[in-house]
Amino acid sequence: MYVVKSPLADADLKIVSEALQGALVDLVDLSLVAKQIHWNIVGPRFRSIHLQLDEVVASARTHSDTVAERASALGVPPDGRAGTVASSSGIGATPAGWIKDGDAVRVMVDALGAVITRMREWVDATGEPDPVSQDIFIGITADLEKHHWMFQAENA
Amino acid sequence: MYVVKSPLADADLKIVSEALQGALVDLVDLSLVAKQIHWNIVGPRFRSIHLQLDEVVASARTHSDTVAERASALGVPPDGRAGTVASSSGIGATPAGWIKDGDAVRVMVDALGAVITRMREWVDATGEPDPVSQDIFIGITADLEKHHWMFQAENA
Amino acid sequence: MYVVKSPLADADLKIVSEALQGALVDLVDLSLVAKQIHWNIVGPRFRSIHLQLDEVVASARTHSDTVAERASALGVPPDGRAGTVASSSGIGATPAGWIKDGDAVRVMVDALGAVITRMREWVDATGEPDPVSQDIFIGITADLEKHHWMFQAENA
Amino acid sequence: MYVVKSPLADADLKIVSEALQGALVDLVDLSLVAKQIHWNIVGPRFRSIHLQLDEVVASARTHSDTVAERASALGVPPDGRAGTVASSSGIGATPAGWIKDGDAVRVMVDALGAVITRMREWVDATGEPDPVSQDIFIGITADLEKHHWMFQAENA
Amino acid sequence: MYVVKSPLADADLKIVSEALQGALVDLVDLSLVAKQIHWNIVGPRFRSIHLQLDEVVASARTHSDTVAERASALGVPPDGRAGTVASSSGIGATPAGWIKDGDAVRVMVDALGAVITRMREWVDATGEPDPVSQDIFIGITADLEKHHWMFQAENA
Amino acid sequence: MYVVKSPLADADLKIVSEALQGALVDLVDLSLVAKQIHWNIVGPRFRSIHLQLDEVVASARTHSDTVAERASALGVPPDGRAGTVASSSGIGATPAGWIKDGDAVRVMVDALGAVITRMREWVDATGEPDPVSQDIFIGITADLEKHHWMFQAENA
Amino acid sequence: MYVVKSPLADADLKIVSEALQGALVDLVDLSLVAKQIHWNIVGPRFRSIHLQLDEVVASARTHSDTVAERASALGVPPDGRAGTVASSSGIGATPAGWIKDGDAVRVMVDALGAVITRMREWVDATGEPDPVSQDIFIGITADLEKHHWMFQAENA
Amino acid sequence: MYVVKSPLADADLKIVSEALQGALVDLVDLSLVAKQIHWNIVGPRFRSIHLQLDEVVASARTHSDTVAERASALGVPPDGRAGTVASSSGIGATPAGWIKDGDAVRVMVDALGAVITRMREWVDATGEPDPVSQDIFIGITADLEKHHWMFQAENA
Amino acid sequence: MYVVKSPLADADLKIVSEALQGALVDLVDLSLVAKQIHWNIVGPRFRSIHLQLDEVVASARTHSDTVAERASALGVPPDGRAGTVASSSGIGATPAGWIKDGDAVRVMVDALGAVITRMREWVDATGEPDPVSQDIFIGITADLEKHHWMFQAENA
Amino acid sequence: MYVVKSPLADADLKIVSEALQGALVDLVDLSLVAKQIHWNIVGPRFRSIHLQLDEVVASARTHSDTVAERASALGVPPDGRAGTVASSSGIGATPAGWIKDGDAVRVMVDALGAVITRMREWVDATGEPDPVSQDIFIGITADLEKHHWMFQAENA
Amino acid sequence: MYVVKSPLADADLKIVSEALQGALVDLVDLSLVAKQIHWNIVGPRFRSIHLQLDEVVASARTHSDTVAERASALGVPPDGRAGTVASSSGIGATPAGWIKDGDAVRVMVDALGAVITRMREWVDATGEPDPVSQDIFIGITADLEKHHWMFQAENA
Amino acid sequence: MYVVKSPLADADLKIVSEALQGALVDLVDLSLVAKQIHWNIVGPRFRSIHLQLDEVVASARTHSDTVAERASALGVPPDGRAGTVASSSGIGATPAGWIKDGDAVRVMVDALGAVITRMREWVDATGEPDPVSQDIFIGITADLEKHHWMFQAENA
Repeated sequence: MYVVKSPLADADLKIVSEALQGALVDLVDLSLVAKQIHWNIVGPRFRSIHLQLDEVVASARTHSDTVAERASALGVPPDGRAGTVASSSGIGATPAGWIKDGDAVRVMVDALGAVITRMREWVDATGEPDPVSQDIFIGITADLEKHHWMFQAENA
Repeated sequence: MYVVKSPLADADLKIVSEALQGALVDLVDLSLVAKQIHWNIVGPRFRSIHLQLDEVVASARTHSDTVAERASALGVPPDGRAGTVASSSGIGATPAGWIKDGDAVRVMVDALGAVITRMREWVDATGEPDPVSQDIFIGITADLEKHHWMFQAENA
Repeated sequence: MYVVKSPLADADLKIVSEALQGALVDLVDLSLVAKQIHWNIVGPRFRSIHLQLDEVVASARTHSDTVAERASALGVPPDGRAGTVASSSGIGATPAGWIKDGDAVRVMVDALGAVITRMREWVDATGEPDPVSQDIFIGITADLEKHHWMFQAENA
Repeated sequence: MYVVKSPLADADLKIVSEALQGALVDLVDLSLVAKQIHWNIVGPRFRSIHLQLDEVVASARTHSDTVAERASALGVPPDGRAGTVASSSGIGATPAGWIKDGDAVRVMVDALGAVITRMREWVDATGEPDPVSQDIFIGITADLEKHHWMFQAENA
Repeated sequence: MYVVKSPLADADLKIVSEALQGALVDLVDLSLVAKQIHWNIVGPRFRSIHLQLDEVVASARTHSDTVAERASALGVPPDGRAGTVASSSGIGATPAGWIKDGDAVRVMVDALGAVITRMREWVDATGEPDPVSQDIFIGITADLEKHHWMFQAENA
Repeated sequence: MYVVKSPLADADLKIVSEALQGALVDLVDLSLVAKQIHWNIVGPRFRSIHLQLDEVVASARTHSDTVAERASALGVPPDGRAGTVASSSGIGATPAGWIKDGDAVRVMVDALGAVITRMREWVDATGEPDPVSQDIFIGITADLEKHHWMFQAENA
Repeated sequence: MYVVKSPLADADLKIVSEALQGALVDLVDLSLVAKQIHWNIVGPRFRSIHLQLDEVVASARTHSDTVAERASALGVPPDGRAGTVASSSGIGATPAGWIKDGDAVRVMVDALGAVITRMREWVDATGEPDPVSQDIFIGITADLEKHHWMFQAENA
Repeated sequence: MYVVKSPLADADLKIVSEALQGALVDLVDLSLVAKQIHWNIVGPRFRSIHLQLDEVVASARTHSDTVAERASALGVPPDGRAGTVASSSGIGATPAGWIKDGDAVRVMVDALGAVITRMREWVDATGEPDPVSQDIFIGITADLEKHHWMFQAENA
Repeated sequence: MYVVKSPLADADLKIVSEALQGALVDLVDLSLVAKQIHWNIVGPRFRSIHLQLDEVVASARTHSDTVAERASALGVPPDGRAGTVASSSGIGATPAGWIKDGDAVRVMVDALGAVITRMREWVDATGEPDPVSQDIFIGITADLEKHHWMFQAENA
Repeated sequence: MYVVKSPLADADLKIVSEALQGALVDLVDLSLVAKQIHWNIVGPRFRSIHLQLDEVVASARTHSDTVAERASALGVPPDGRAGTVASSSGIGATPAGWIKDGDAVRVMVDALGAVITRMREWVDATGEPDPVSQDIFIGITADLEKHHWMFQAENA
Repeated sequence: MYVVKSPLADADLKIVSEALQGALVDLVDLSLVAKQIHWNIVGPRFRSIHLQLDEVVASARTHSDTVAERASALGVPPDGRAGTVASSSGIGATPAGWIKDGDAVRVMVDALGAVITRMREWVDATGEPDPVSQDIFIGITADLEKHHWMFQAENA
Repeated sequence: MYVVKSPLADADLKIVSEALQGALVDLVDLSLVAKQIHWNIVGPRFRSIHLQLDEVVASARTHSDTVAERASALGVPPDGRAGTVASSSGIGATPAGWIKDGDAVRVMVDALGAVITRMREWVDATGEPDPVSQDIFIGITADLEKHHWMFQAENA
């Protein structure tokens, strides 16, 4: 018995739902990491990067909502709880406390890089079983790679 | 040495910064719990509560930003990382998977109730050392108690 | 048994809920009185005060909604029915029929003065039992005293 | 002597001004009743009907302003004071205290029904003496009958 | 042969098109008179009435466009040229030069009164031949009578 | 037994509900015809009329919603399904495929003309049994006759 | 000879244009079905689903415009006339008359399910001949599957 | 004695005020002529030029207000009454009745050309006595010459 | 050596920068004077002039920003500090304490008159050395003379 | 005799009005200092801090209006004239001429620090005599301490 | 060494970056060509196509920004300088001077056709090496083909 | 023969049209150069200057449209094609590839400086033959000199 009937066959659904769950966790964590740096950054570029980080937060929140609701639409309940995010995110540890602007940029370059790498794997994995989900991953990747460029350019 | 000089004496600062850090964690967790239910709720009240939950998310996100930036303004770096939230939130465990609308409302009544209890303690604790922070806690409590009433009324 | 559980102890709740019910009645009546004068004013200052009165109406409607919902949030059902307003408002009788602009301003100075006096008593009474409700009364008093000044200045 | 000169003959004016005064009282009371229920409703349909009631409040406030200013434009001072509303409204008594959602809907079906019946009588009465006022009553009736349908459909 | 085919029979069309042409001329003139006073008014109520007059201008411009396009829709070309307005308007002569605020109000009371008298005749005349045009006249009359009240109240 | 109680007597209701059902079908069809031409028009006036047609679509959609909800408000379930529209519309057959701009204008002149003729009959028929519905038909007729003039002027 | 030159070869165009024409018919019908239920739904969830249905209507109208204009852009005149919709839609018959809220939800689950099944076939069919049209089908499928989840969740 | 004291010497004021009064009359007449054509134009370019004319109306109304208020600011009461416009406008006679689109464009080319010629004379005349008024004439000329080009391009 | 290179020759720059610095001081002071009266005015015209004064404040703030940034753009650092304003403003002393509405208007007529006199001198002085700065002075003069007329008309 | 009657006793009023007058002067000066730096700052952080300073200006202007109108509402005429600001501001001297970005930040850290120190004293002083004014000081302090943190973080 | 690290392997990057650089040049040129025609078009369809061309300009500017920033995000600096555009655009020569409306449409049909042909080649080329860039090309192609249809329909 | 008749004599027109054509080319090139740097800038000031450059792009696009349409209004067809821009721009060569932030600012200082020098020559040249065009050049110069100051301040 099901609550929401999936348009996908079981094998396809397994691949796609694991990708969506992985992306959900990464994107929620990305929003929390960017907010953490937004609050703790110090240095001569404070204001500029403080504002830039809120654009990452906005992107990550929108994308996490999209992938979670996509999972629901495929009949698989998403899991974006704090404990799940803390234990399964693809982003490495973020330092606590005040952080200098140059270090802040490096943390964001690494965090975005880690999510992008996984996002590109999910683009590859989902094209066959569900081109609709793949299209969502493609759109998110384009947006994250734009943010990634901007932080790299900032520290170049 | 300090990065941001606090307008408060050390003893006062200790009380106030613990309150702000506690509130930050609770409010970030509240936003994650409300989103989790927003995605997983099922039942005849799906749409109405699905929308109501996004209003809680918006409130919790705004308030968490306010308390985190208040901590920074007092010279104390805030910590809103996923691991910190997972380990120190005042909200109890949220169930995974699809959740019926009546159960969803009960989860929110409990979560809001837990945060409100702590928020009222912080109102009491901070009035003397920092009426500015107390005023922020008072405003947040008013808003959370309004949400709390609405979810209680919903299941009455 | 209760429908909405109050965060306040019974004795505190009694004080606060009486204040909120009193404020609700006064504010609903203030909105009706200001509309009455808005429709019946005549004289060379007609347009200017006609518009000013609608700003009082907007304030009074917003504040009455705030105190009524605050009562609900504390677990006490508010009563803003016409009969209750007519019998328990703190504002004196308003004359019927066309009213000259100078008299209109005097009616508003008196009506606002009466509500402000009671509002300041509720600020005093509620600070101990519920600083959250007190903060609402403080905000309303600030707004009403601003309107009060403007009508006094008008007739000076 | 007059303050505002009426475009209507005396006999016509008597009919039309009684209709406008009646409508003013009913519409002010409708706005107060809908707000009362808006604050006191409980039950699984709380949020949906809580919001729906504020749409009735907005309609009733707009229409009461229209009919009061129409009376002024015809040279007759309108009376929308609390005491007048309490003593001459065409809407029956509204219960105090918390009210279950199904009962809330029934109260609104009855209140709207009572006002509509009188409004249709005023449409009939004013067509001859003042088609301009009649057109206002027709527009209000169309709007109230739409609200009436929606509350009936809700409890069907 | 016709350019735009009228939905009305010839006799009906004659009555309705004369009414529309008359209303067009009066409304264009009303907009010019109100602007004239808007520019030339002086006295302690300058600003208040200066602004009020622009609301009459906006009303008159909107209504003149409505009646002119209604004539076109009925297959009759409207005439709103300066010479036609100057020679056939129902509004009396407006004085040139600076005008004191009290006099300005009286000019507007008279101008609005003149247009309203004719507008009510057109309401009566068009109900039978074309209820669609009548409904437009009714709506314009309601709006002009509201402006008329406000200027009368101003000088009461 | 009824779901929504009608404010009209049975005989009156029969006349009015047939008019509303007829208008609903015509207006839904008008929106489909205008969209069809919007997509298929070619020729030097392509862009201008392509845009003009979307204004007809917007009008027709708004009006169809109004008449359908008016039927519901009178207690009669409206029927706007494709099959009903296809079989009972008052608009003649629309050609398939690309259509030259001059022909497109002629199709719209004819379609609007057909709906207006019926709309004027419903204005006449409903004035006695339900002036509220009549007022809706009058407003729709005014709008459609304005569109009708514009398309006739375009091909003059 | 052609009016609009297609960027596709003939064989590819045949596949793609059949898909677009099929989608156009389904989406126009979906908008009509959702409006039909929007007007006729009754029951305790009336208001919530009444509003939800208008979001489906808005989606379906936007998507139908997109696919019709895509057909035009490929040089193939689209056909969205009522008769074509009535005879070739992929959605099953919709019941006439008042419909209980639970039944209304089931009708929408079935209608959306039917369109989604065909939309996924068109995603598969068009990837090779025209990835531009395929991308449009993918986007529409994502949106419809989101609506589908919401209606399933509502009745779970 | 004066009402508003002029910043200009008498000789300068005479030159400038005649220019402003001339411009006021021309611009009011331009707005009336453009509206007249807006209502009476027929032909295949109906909609495009109908809309274009309303942009001329908006320009002319804004500019006439600017020059009239400039006259007032210089202490000279402006005269924009219908009779004054009819007798002293620099624009030639406008034909009554339906007007073909090509003729409509020619009327506008001529009307704009006439106003521009005078406006350029006022630019020359006012530079010495009042560069502030000259700057206003320069801005109006720029705008009118843009409209002039567009109507010439239309008929090229 | 310079920080920002001036496009003007030294002698020209001296004239223009003195004019800009003078205008900056006058405009900052004008904004402070208008706010002072805005807060202290009393009398029957209180509300009307209270609002009018905020329009002067908005104008003066915008213009002071324009002239200060113009000075920077010419390579000359502007000085708008309180002490500089207090010691070099061209506006006479403003009385402290409550001020009656008629007196308030006179204070504004004088203050605007003083600034306009100097502004017209700067228009003359800067035309040769820098027509770009002159054009800014011309625009400010036009705006201030409009305010000047309105206050004179108010007290006429 | 009084113009505006104070709701406070004389001794309380003395304390509160001195606090409000002090705050008014500081906040007006803060807006002038921030604008001065906004115009004169140079260096690699020019644009970022130039924009940040305008946010301080907006805050300071809004807060100065609030405290001045609060003084009026308590019956005490506020004094925000340039001379008063220059002679009694709590902010130290601001340097004239171009200022490097790092120095600009330090000037703002000092200016904000000075105002905050006094503002916290006024929070303490006014709690007893007038909690309404105290609440205003608390809100302003929260906002200024947020700006203070941001400028400190910028130079960390 | 790199400034921005590419997520693509070198061979893939070469293909994709050549496509992006080609698209950038074409889209910048398209915006310049459409503006050129926007300024120089004459004839009876002047206004309609003048406006239509600005929609192409807006599209082309948005798309050129997207592809340039995509190149940066892939680590390849884009080149959109005038000389590069002039020498490598895929659009043929555009005539100088006034251009008749029919010719203008033909120029746009050709220009859009040329860009679309290349865009479809880039869709094919990039699917394998970078589906993210391919998705951008697909979206641009859909938009350009819509503009292409509209200009073809205009001249049909 | 002419298409658009010029209001200027031939000799005057020659001077003015050469100035407008020169300005058009410079402004189009300025928009392309600013976009080029917007995409290629790297370094710690990346985000701040990246955003600042888009403000230059917006200015340059608006101004180029103004001067091109001014040329058309004077009867001279403007030429803003890529080849014309590449061969006749007054701005020096812009480097290809990534560019450090300090260098980026220098490129913009130089580019703006070059355009301003020519713009001031055109201000001088056009005052006599056409003060309307001169006023446009004055406005553009004011805006460009403001941008010029900001980039100089950035690198000071």
